[in-house]
Formats: sequence, C-alpha cells, structure tokens
Amino acid sequence: MIQRLGMTLGILLAGVLPSLAHADEGMWLYNNPPKKILKEKYGFDPPQSWYDHLQKSSVRFNTGGSGSFVSADGLVMTNHHVGLSALQKLSGKGKDYVKDGFYAKTLDDEVKAVDEELNVLMEIVDVTDKVKAVVKAEMKPQEAFEARRGVIAKIEADSEKETGLRSNVITLYQGGQYHLYRFKRFTDVRLVFAPEQQIAFFGGDADNFAYPRYDLDCCFFRVYENGKPAKVEHFLKWSKDGAKEDELVFVSGHPGHTDRLNTVSELEYLRDIGYPFIMQRLNRLEVMLTVYSGRGEEYERQAKDFLFSVANSRKARDGGLAGLQDPALMKLKQAQEKKLRDAVATNTDLKDCADAWDIIAKVQKPRAANIRRYQMLEGGSAFNSSLFGIARTLVRAADEFAKPNEKRLSEFGESEKQSLQFKLFSKRPIYPEFELAKLQDSMGWMCEILGTKDPLVQKVLAGKSPRERAAELLNGSKLADVAVRKKLFEGGAKAIAASKDPMILLAKLVDADARKVRAILENQVEEPKKQAYDKIARAKFAIEGTDTYPDATFTLRLSFGECKAFVEDGKKIPYRTTFEGLYQKAKDNNNKAPFDIPPRWLERKAKLNLKTPFNFVCTADIIGGNSGSPVVNRKGEVVGLIFDGNIQSLVWDFVYSDEVGRSVSVSSEAMPEAMRAIFDADALAKEIETGARQ
Amino acid sequence: MIQRLGMTLGILLAGVLPSLAHADEGMWLYNNPPKKILKEKYGFDPPQSWYDHLQKSSVRFNTGGSGSFVSADGLVMTNHHVGLSALQKLSGKGKDYVKDGFYAKTLDDEVKAVDEELNVLMEIVDVTDKVKAVVKAEMKPQEAFEARRGVIAKIEADSEKETGLRSNVITLYQGGQYHLYRFKRFTDVRLVFAPEQQIAFFGGDADNFAYPRYDLDCCFFRVYENGKPAKVEHFLKWSKDGAKEDELVFVSGHPGHTDRLNTVSELEYLRDIGYPFIMQRLNRLEVMLTVYSGRGEEYERQAKDFLFSVANSRKARDGGLAGLQDPALMKLKQAQEKKLRDAVATNTDLKDCADAWDIIAKVQKPRAANIRRYQMLEGGSAFNSSLFGIARTLVRAADEFAKPNEKRLSEFGESEKQSLQFKLFSKRPIYPEFELAKLQDSMGWMCEILGTKDPLVQKVLAGKSPRERAAELLNGSKLADVAVRKKLFEGGAKAIAASKDPMILLAKLVDADARKVRAILENQVEEPKKQAYDKIARAKFAIEGTDTYPDATFTLRLSFGECKAFVEDGKKIPYRTTFEGLYQKAKDNNNKAPFDIPPRWLERKAKLNLKTPFNFVCTADIIGGNSGSPVVNRKGEVVGLIFDGNIQSLVWDFVYSDEVGRSVSVSSEAMPEAMRAIFDADALAKEIETGARQ
Repeated sequence: MIQRLGMTLGILLAGVLPSLAHADEGMWLYNNPPKKILKEKYGFDPPQSWYDHLQKSSVRFNTGGSGSFVSADGLVMTNHHVGLSALQKLSGKGKDYVKDGFYAKTLDDEVKAVDEELNVLMEIVDVTDKVKAVVKAEMKPQEAFEARRGVIAKIEADSEKETGLRSNVITLYQGGQYHLYRFKRFTDVRLVFAPEQQIAFFGGDADNFAYPRYDLDCCFFRVYENGKPAKVEHFLKWSKDGAKEDELVFVSGHPGHTDRLNTVSELEYLRDIGYPFIMQRLNRLEVMLTVYSGRGEEYERQAKDFLFSVANSRKARDGGLAGLQDPALMKLKQAQEKKLRDAVATNTDLKDCADAWDIIAKVQKPRAANIRRYQMLEGGSAFNSSLFGIARTLVRAADEFAKPNEKRLSEFGESEKQSLQFKLFSKRPIYPEFELAKLQDSMGWMCEILGTKDPLVQKVLAGKSPRERAAELLNGSKLADVAVRKKLFEGGAKAIAASKDPMILLAKLVDADARKVRAILENQVEEPKKQAYDKIARAKFAIEGTDTYPDATFTLRLSFGECKAFVEDGKKIPYRTTFEGLYQKAKDNNNKAPFDIPPRWLERKAKLNLKTPFNFVCTADIIGGNSGSPVVNRKGEVVGLIFDGNIQSLVWDFVYSDEVGRSVSVSSEAMPEAMRAIFDADALAKEIETGARQ
Repeated sequence: MIQRLGMTLGILLAGVLPSLAHADEGMWLYNNPPKKILKEKYGFDPPQSWYDHLQKSSVRFNTGGSGSFVSADGLVMTNHHVGLSALQKLSGKGKDYVKDGFYAKTLDDEVKAVDEELNVLMEIVDVTDKVKAVVKAEMKPQEAFEARRGVIAKIEADSEKETGLRSNVITLYQGGQYHLYRFKRFTDVRLVFAPEQQIAFFGGDADNFAYPRYDLDCCFFRVYENGKPAKVEHFLKWSKDGAKEDELVFVSGHPGHTDRLNTVSELEYLRDIGYPFIMQRLNRLEVMLTVYSGRGEEYERQAKDFLFSVANSRKARDGGLAGLQDPALMKLKQAQEKKLRDAVATNTDLKDCADAWDIIAKVQKPRAANIRRYQMLEGGSAFNSSLFGIARTLVRAADEFAKPNEKRLSEFGESEKQSLQFKLFSKRPIYPEFELAKLQDSMGWMCEILGTKDPLVQKVLAGKSPRERAAELLNGSKLADVAVRKKLFEGGAKAIAASKDPMILLAKLVDADARKVRAILENQVEEPKKQAYDKIARAKFAIEGTDTYPDATFTLRLSFGECKAFVEDGKKIPYRTTFEGLYQKAKDNNNKAPFDIPPRWLERKAKLNLKTPFNFVCTADIIGGNSGSPVVNRKGEVVGLIFDGNIQSLVWDFVYSDEVGRSVSVSSEAMPEAMRAIFDADALAKEIETGARQ
C-alpha cells in the first residue's frame, strides 16, 4: 500500500494540476446544495423536498460518525467501527460483542447503549451578520474573541429555549460564515445488530484504506422515545438493485475536518510541526496499546476500540503527511493561492483583504511555540485517563456553570449542558489496569515533552516518579463511582473546593496553566486567523462566486459522485467486489489473520449467494466522520453504506481529485443477504427492505 | 509489568540509597578481576588459570551478543535471540528456521551462517600511557581527537601485524584508561541447533524482562577452521546438577553499554533529550514494522528479527527512562557526585580534576543541538535501507582506505578491514518490498526531523516526495548484487566517482554533511568529555581505590552473584521455574499467543521430565550484550545460560542493586532434557554433557 501511494501520488497530482476543478468535488451545505452542477452535469434537479427528506433521514453519532434512519421505527444504520465504542462499552469480561457480534431477535433483546447520543439536523439559520456585528475593528484579539464567544453562546441558548432543540453555531469557511444548526437529540439508543469485528474489518490494518475490499462494516441501532421505538417521519427506503456502474449517487453525512481552504503557510505548519507531533503521539499510543493488548485476551478486549481508533488515525495521518510532503501538492496550493492573491491585488473592493495571508503566516509562530504545551495540558495528553477527563469536567463545570452563559468556555455553554451531563454520568466501564497503563505512559510523556524541570510538572509529580505518581492518583480516586461524580457535580464550587480526591486535586492543579495556554492559542492564533479567513472567504466569494462549499466541520453535508472503476499501477480496479472475492482472499492468505473469516461464515458459506455485490467505490467527496453515511440513488434509496476511502483518497484532506481517489461502501445487497444466510436475522433484513419493523 | 515497575522502583531505590555499595555489583575486567571481594565474601580464591580458562572459553558474537565454547569440537552455546539474525538470514520464503527451529543431525547438515563473525579474547595489554602521551595540554580539541585516533590506529595495526589477531584499543572509564584487546577471529560459523522461536521467546513482549519465565532461549553453532570443526583448547564443562539456591555463580560475557559513571548532567541529558529521541524513533519503527508484518505471513517473516530487536530495545529503554525520571535515582546520583566532588575539592593532588563536572555539563548543549542531525545523517536513520548502508560503506571505503591508517575514521582502521569486507560482501537476503517500506518511512521522518526546507533534504529529494524518491533510489540501485559491490570496492575512488548507481550518488551527496556533524560531536562533545572523564577516573582511583570496574563497552567482563529468590509486591518469587510451570502458564492463557506452546511440545509432553528446572535468576550484574553468556559454578562448569534481566534490573543501566534486580538464565538441566525429549537431538545433548562430538 505504501508502495502504491508512493508511486501514484505524483501521477495523481500531476493529473490535478492542469484542471484545478473537479466535477464531483464538494462537501456541500444543505442550505447551499450543488444544484447547478447536478443539473448541468447530471441533468438531475430534484425538488427541495428531496433534500429535506435526505437531511432529516441523516443521523450524527456524537462519538464521531454518521448514520441514517432506515425504517419508520427508528432503525439507524451505521458502520461497525462507528458502533465500536458502544459495543465495547456493552461488553465485559467473558462477553464480547465486538468479537462475537450481536443480534436482537426481539425488541426486548435490544440493549441500551451506555452513553450514545444521536443528533438529527432539523434546521439551519444563517447568523453570520449577528455574529460578525459584535466584533469591532478597534477590538484587541482577546476582546474580539470573547465578544464572538458571547454572542454565539447567546444565540445558542436563545434558540434552545425557543425550540427545545440542541443548538450550535457552526463556524464555516474558517470564520467566513456562521450558521446556527438545530438538532433533535436522541439519547435512548439501543443495539440491534452487529456482525463479528473480523468480518466488519476483514483485512485489518493492512487493508484499511485499501481497495478492493471485503468488509461488512455495518451496525444497526434503534432510537427510542419514552421507552418505545421512535416513530420517525423521515427514513430512507432500501434499494434492492444496489449501485450500478457509473450511476450517480449521493452521500449524506458528517465529514469531520478538512484543510482545503488553508493557506500555504498553514499547510507548511501542518507539514513541519502539526502532523509530525500528531504522528509522534499516535506511534507512542499504538505501541503502548499493542503492548497492553499483548498481556492476554481480556487486556486485548479492553483496549480494542482505542487501539482501532489510534491505528486508523495513524494510517490516515500518515497518508495525509505524505501528501503534505509531496512537492506537487504544495506547488498546486501555491498556484491556487497566487491566483487568488493576484486577483485580490487588482480589485479595489477587496483592498482590505490583501493582508490576510500574511496575518495567517504570522500566527503560525506562536502556534508552533505553544502547540505541544497546549496538547499536553489543555488537550489532556499528559493525563490519558478517563478519570482525569471526569475530574477535569467536574472542576471546570463548577467554575463555568457559575458564570453567565456568555462568559463560559464554549463547551460549557447552556446548549451543551445536557449532552455534557449525559456523558459525565455514563456508566461506561473503567478498567483500573488499563487506566494505569495509559496514565503512567502519558505522565512519562509529559516529562519528555514539557521537561522534568518544568515547575508545573514538578508540582504534578510531587517528588515521585511518573509511574509511582500515576498509581497513587488512580488508587486514591473515587471518580469511577457515578454517584461520587453526581455529588461533586451537584455540589458545585463548594464541593470541588472541599474534595480531597487526588484526581480532582490534579485537575485543579493544572487548570490555570491549561487555561493560560488555551487563551494564548485562542487570542494569538485562532482569533487573528478567523478574521483573516473571513477576508479570504469574502475575496473568494467575490472572485469565484458562492457556488462553493466550506471545509468540513463535523456537520451535515451532501456529496455526490459516480460509481466508477479506477486505474492503479496500470491495472483497472473494478468498481465492486462480491462475497466470492472475500472467500478467495481468505484462501490466498491461508485464512490467517488479518485475512481470516469468522467460523460462522465458513460453516454457512453454502447458504450465501456468492455473486452478491459486497463493497463498491464511488467518487463522492468524503473524509473521516463520513463513516456510516448512507449512499443513495436519485430516488433517495439506500444503495450503500460508506465506510472508508482508498489510499489515494488520503490527500483529500488538502485537495480533492477523482482521478483515482474513491470512497468505499458496503452494498445494499450485501447486508440483507448476510443477515439471512449467516445471522438468521431475517426480521431485520425484512425491516430494512420494507421500511417497517416486522 | 508496567504497574510492578511503577510500584517497586521507589522501594528499590529507597533500598539503594543508604548503602551505596552492593556486594555483587560489577562487570569486572579480566585483567582486574574482583579477587578481593570473592575471597572476602565467598572465600573463593581460584588460581589465575581459572580466570584464563573462563576468558578463553568465552565468545563474542559481533552481531551483539555473547556465547561460550561447550565442547572441544568448537560447539558454541548462545541465546536463540542472539542467533536470531543468523537464523533469519538462512531462512527464505517457505523455509523458516526462526519459526520452525533447526537441528543438524550430522556435520554435513550443519549450515554455514551468512556473515556471522565470532571473536575470542586472547590477550589484554594496558596501553593507557601510550595513548595519553600523544595528547598535549596545549592541543585544541580537534588536534587532540585526531592525535588520539592516530595513535590508537597505529597500536591496533602494529598489534595485528605482530600477532595476526584482530586488535582493538578499548576506551575504559569513559577515557580514563585504554586497553588493547586481541581477539582470535572465527568466520566459518555453522548452525547446529535452534528451538522454535515460540518456545525460545515464550510469553513474547509481555513476558520480556519479566520473571518467573519459561523460555528455552538457546541456540548452538559450531566454528570451523579449514572446513573442519575447530579444535578448541578452552571450553566449559557441563554441570548436570545445575544451579542450587544461594549458590555462587559467575557470568562471563560482553555487556554492551552502561551509564553508571556518567555525571548527573549527562544523565539529565539522557533523561531530557537522548532517551526521548530514541523512544520516538523506536516507537515509529515498531509501528512501521508491525504494519509491514501485518501484510501477510511472508512479510512477517522478513521483518521478524528487526521487529524483535526494536521491541526489545523499546522495552529496555522504556524501563531505563522510567529510572531516569525517578527522582530517587537522581538524588542518589547527585549524592554520589557531591561526595566525590567534595573529596576532590579538599585534595590538592587532584586540584586539576575539579573542573571536570562543569566541562561535561557544558558539552551537553552542543550535544543536544546536534544529536538529531547526527542520528539522521551520520547514524543513517534518514536512510533506513541495507542498500544505503552498503553504499555508505563503499563510498567511505574509497576515501578512507586511500588515507594513511592513522588518519582514517576509526571504523576504517587497518584492523577493521577484514571484518568490514566480510560484512560488505555478505550474501544476506535483501527483500525489495522491505527495503522500500523502511526507506520510505525513514525518508519521511528525515523531512520531519530536519525539515523539508533544509538544503540537504531538498537535494536528497530532488523535487520528489520522500516516498517517490525512495522508490526511485531502490529501483535504480544494483547494490543488492554482491559482484557489483566487489567491483566498486576494488575499483576504489575511481569506480565510485564513475558510478551512476543512485544509492552511491545519495551516499556521496550526504557524506560531507554527515562528516561535518560527526566532527562537531567528536570535537565539541566527545573529546572534552574524554579528557574530563579521565580526570574523574583519576580522582576516583585516588579516593576510592582501583578495586573497581569501568562502564560496559561490549568487551569481555566477569560478573558474579548468587542464585537468589526475590520479593515482588510482598510476594516471594522462587529463584527457579520448571517445565511444569511452562505448561501451566500456557493453560492459564488458553494456549493463546504469546503464551502458546509449539505443537511438538504439546505432542511430546509425556516424554519430558516436568520437574526439570527450566529458568532461574541470580544477582550477577549484567546488561544488554550479556545475552548468551554462560553461567558457571566455582568449578567453572556451565549451570546456565543468561538470556534476560527482570523488570527491576532495567535501572542497572545507571545503578546496580541486588535487592530485587535479577538476571535470568536457562538452566543447564533444561537444555539436554528438551534436546532429547522434544527434538530427538540426543547426540547434541551428549556432546555438551561430555564435551566432545559424538
């Protein structure tokens, strides 16, 4: 895979350079969909209701993924790897839903997830003018930052009060626009179906971001209201025909983060500082978690979802960094930037925008100087422990909730309170040995990054070694007990001040330094950047028009593309695979991990129609966070389920191209076929096919 | 394991502080053995011939380990993990001696190792005065460095000419003494016996540096001369009784490196800069190699020995760094240093020694500033590829061998030429995909560490991405062909100048920068340090006497200790285990990796005497490099085979303590028992028991 990337990236980008625009590019806002392109290129011009229906059938998993309603009875389809953390939290010693899979034959068998919150986007309101109005030219960065935070908190709280919906103001175009998103919230989420991880993630890390693929990466939940399956108005119908070659399809999901509008100086920061530091952290975590897993089966089970997510990020970032290190990518970005800057320079209306790029370049210096301390203290990497996370939340909740809404840290805004409590009081399992391994390792790393002589580090260690101190903190803390957390939360500042819990004391000890470095980044980096990107956005709209899309923000977007084969190392890779290919690949690898098929799949092979399409690719523009997004056809029917991109798509973080980059999906035919033949889940298969519970 | 370390390190060091001296401490020089202690504490006072015999029965593996002759017919005992690289090089697709083990029933079946060189220490000559005489007080560091290098090269070359023995001047006490070591060299080394890696390394990374243990970590080679088994005068007899509890035993081997005499400023450098950088590199390598191994069985086979060595170093360094981060250790070191400095301050004879500590503290700054560039360019971490290593050697050989011996880089001294050629022309397998994975990863890392804007990095990349450039370099190079290497080597400077091989061109391109940063470290760090440590050594000898030992230097040392149980978490850990414990541990873990027993061991369990002692611990002072050392009793008979230390011994890098630190061995009873019951290797069992080939 590494080889393929090395060999094709140059070619890929060579292909990008001349055109600069790609027909199927874009993670479009639902309030600014790509109507023009769809009409012109595909002759497709659906009514507004088509968009509304797809929007309201789409579901966000707050743990970081996408999903969709696929029956009137609140059935939600997503990826196995999106459901992984829920599966992990429902498992325990001797009960492993991750490894063995799960199927609830009846409603009574459906198991409530520990702390899964799902959101459905109901409405978008453009509040750009309101937000921008509070920032005056004469304000210092800190004042501007606080004014903007204040007005956003107010808009959110007012909206929640008015509508009862979770309300978040989303920053788009890195600060060019602000939209208010209103979400319906579901917190009674129950597990219905999951295959074995080994078939969901067949090929493991080796095949991750690769194609052809053979993964049944699906998982089904059901949302409940008042103890009963929620009746949902909007859900997606199921296509029996699946995705045909060259067919136009749509992806509705929540891409997490892209850096496509970044200036060259920001990309250089990411290449030289940001990504290398992330890679250092991920490599370290991956080794630590692999070592922990190696201690035995139960250890492996405890670390599974964390290890998956770390290895997955590592592979994605590795591909992204390779893109940044490719001079062809940088040349492309430089050319784009120069073109825009030249246009701005000759446009008197945009005179005040001309300094934006230099401002952004300048703030990379304080960013580079503070990012490591920020990550350790405010990001919490120095204290990799669930109990520290809880302590941090409790300590800050006591401070923040005592303040007026507009003055709080954004994550303690009134509109976030409900979700925060839901998570804080979750009964997710906490494993003492796992906590210890994580905290010892991370406190050792804190010494390496901040230095043992750092005054705060000295106070944190209290004269002990990192390992000894970590053990002392964990042994002394009672925060694993939800009742203790509730009492501290409800007791507010007084209870926190009186607490002798060592984890609470630690969270208090580091809080001032953590807030300080956060403020440096907010005031010296984020705020000037926002104002500068606002200028760039204005310039772009003026020069290139508004038929465009902002970088991904983990909010709902619409992408589109065709189900198209691609060429790799001179070889055509067909757009789809079948179950037959799965068995062949396992055979080619002597059924050895990571290419081993679960026993049930070997026993029941004869029952399965091996010609059934299994996975397929399309050119729709996606990124991490899109996992679990439905793929629908023109009729809005589910033809697939996004779960990955190929290795050539890893540069989509910075630049999209459909020459060879592809997103990867499970086909709509594969899921019911496997449910019936392998899992005896006929009722579920029928529910998705008919849109109603059987 | 991490937990145990965290919890016991404080206790361990608390135990160290009051006494400061430990009876069983020391990696003693054979020309200054611990006669006084042995006589006083153990009433043991053997004749000089006892020491001479043990010395000449000891063998050094130049790949980084120890061994011993155990029959008159040149049979050499070492660890499986010392033989691992030889096993790996003899294996190939579909032939895996690492996984399956190996046994040569007859001489004809013994397979010649690809490039294994064994050395036996025949003589030591103190050349301290000769070396020191050339360094004059008025010399600049560079002059002093070159003068010393020159006289050492001359001593070595003269000695080799005179004796025909490989001759190396060893720097002891960090520059306090210089001894000439003369080695007999064996290069026809043939594989006789190896068990399956799974039994040699039972418990894998999880049990590495742990105790109790159940590992048959042994491997046997035979050295040949003139095509026949070498007749050796000195070899160790085998003990049938093994090591008894509390028995005095001796370890004769080649500890690689310790930092016990380091000043506090050097330890701080290691804690804050050196070790964190090494850990960063090891974590990255471990992830890269694990990912490569995950691609399939053959990939896993190719990467096995490298991955083992990286994971092993990572675990050892992790323990070492934990020690450095422990304030108790630093306080101990500070107390020791203060005591010596105070004594120096009041001793007028040692007046000129007083500034040594400040000099050493001062050089840590240029060291920290240059170590990353040094590691990337001179250490070769930027170009992790066997072909680059070959190219570097060829390019430098052309330069260096053209110079007079005294002016050459030390590794190109006349005395090294034979070993260098032996390695350079080795037919070890080189796997193109493995080379590519390593080189792409390391060139990406080069960009991260040196920066993409570094002028040399720009030249190296030649406008391409690191991955693309790495592929281009490997695809274009012909250095995998030994004949090509020979031609270039013999063609000297002219051939190198004419070569268009891209790897040769790369090695030439980076050579000036690599030499430059090497010179900075040699002149600004190593040379002032050597002179300062010479002063400290003089002060130590004057104040504490000469009954002491220098830090480890991968040369032959004698350690001693008792076979003693130890206490961990309040529980007594018996000094030895049995085969019975092996089967029990596998059962406790459902025979799942890394606690799975090879099939042959399961089938033949009934044949094995399960009461046979398997592994045992003793207090002898060892470190990495001691792997494969024989453990002998007062009669000089083999009672065991060193293969590891427990987790509490990982701080021995900096400070020895026998409170709970232990070295770990395979018992002399286990090896012949397993050979007979499991491997049908009766002839080999008899050879070690009788000391002669059957």
